[in-house]
Amino acid sequence: MRILGIDPGSKATGYGVVDRVDGRVVHVAHGTLRPPPSAPLAERLARLCRDVAEVVAAHGPDVASVEQVFVAANPRSALVLGQARGAVLAALGEAGLRVQEYSTTAVKQALTGSGAADKRQVQRMVRSALSLERTPGSDAADALALAICHASAGRLAELGVRSRGGSRGAARRSWDVRRAR
Amino acid sequence: MRILGIDPGSKATGYGVVDRVDGRVVHVAHGTLRPPPSAPLAERLARLCRDVAEVVAAHGPDVASVEQVFVAANPRSALVLGQARGAVLAALGEAGLRVQEYSTTAVKQALTGSGAADKRQVQRMVRSALSLERTPGSDAADALALAICHASAGRLAELGVRSRGGSRGAARRSWDVRRAR
Repeated sequence: MRILGIDPGSKATGYGVVDRVDGRVVHVAHGTLRPPPSAPLAERLARLCRDVAEVVAAHGPDVASVEQVFVAANPRSALVLGQARGAVLAALGEAGLRVQEYSTTAVKQALTGSGAADKRQVQRMVRSALSLERTPGSDAADALALAICHASAGRLAELGVRSRGGSRGAARRSWDVRRAR
Repeated sequence: MRILGIDPGSKATGYGVVDRVDGRVVHVAHGTLRPPPSAPLAERLARLCRDVAEVVAAHGPDVASVEQVFVAANPRSALVLGQARGAVLAALGEAGLRVQEYSTTAVKQALTGSGAADKRQVQRMVRSALSLERTPGSDAADALALAICHASAGRLAELGVRSRGGSRGAARRSWDVRRAR
């Protein structure tokens, strides 16, 4: 199973692609999409939509993993984030991809074992989990973390089926990810 | 000049197309796009993006007119509106359309002469300004109002050029629109 994690933002949208093979999570690609900041809004959103479509076409993921939005206190930033998210989700929907949402806490927990990890910890854990030579940038790391979260959630779902319920498996998310190295 | 007014919403997106011919504003088409409510979010946004692209392809507008977002007090609704707006703007940007934004007050003022008009007044004025047989639905009426606002703003810009400043023209927006019947 190939998973695309994607972290939409108005200035930078991170993406990360991983494969889940025999319970291991293997890095495929990651990067950051940055539409030209000086272009008009509609043009930037069109570019973002097109860039996401190209990432999907290039890597052929089976599923996409995005962050369940933590709604900020500020309606203006919610609107701006919503616009980027709308362009990204439209591209994923157009490609016929199933989109799974995970809360920030779930993603951090899956990676670090703690829902309170900071950005740097996430970046370090992503690098370590995928045996990357360099620490990815923060947007791409968040996207890879989303992909890893889905990979481990899928693994847990399987464990859940085996144990008929398997609620204990949920506590072991981080374990599954670390084993995947 | 052909103008597409568009009023994005998560459930219903109104659109309206008008021509400005010799200072008159002439109705071309209007309607409401409603992606299937039961479909997943990404699919709905992809559909919205595609539907807007089809409206643009069918009518070939020269410019698009959208509402300058009044940021709601509620960040959740700002996010949801932002997503629909992102999908719509991406489609407009992809079509290479210039997008002009107008505040709700400017739109109402252009149509009714008062920035405080309610939805029904706008619907009635749109019907009257374009000599429509029936009152359009509220989403389509808002979109037509946006298109009419741009048409009259363009007319005013011309008047402004002629009078070298022409700030008095701004007060006559509603007059210009009504004359266009």
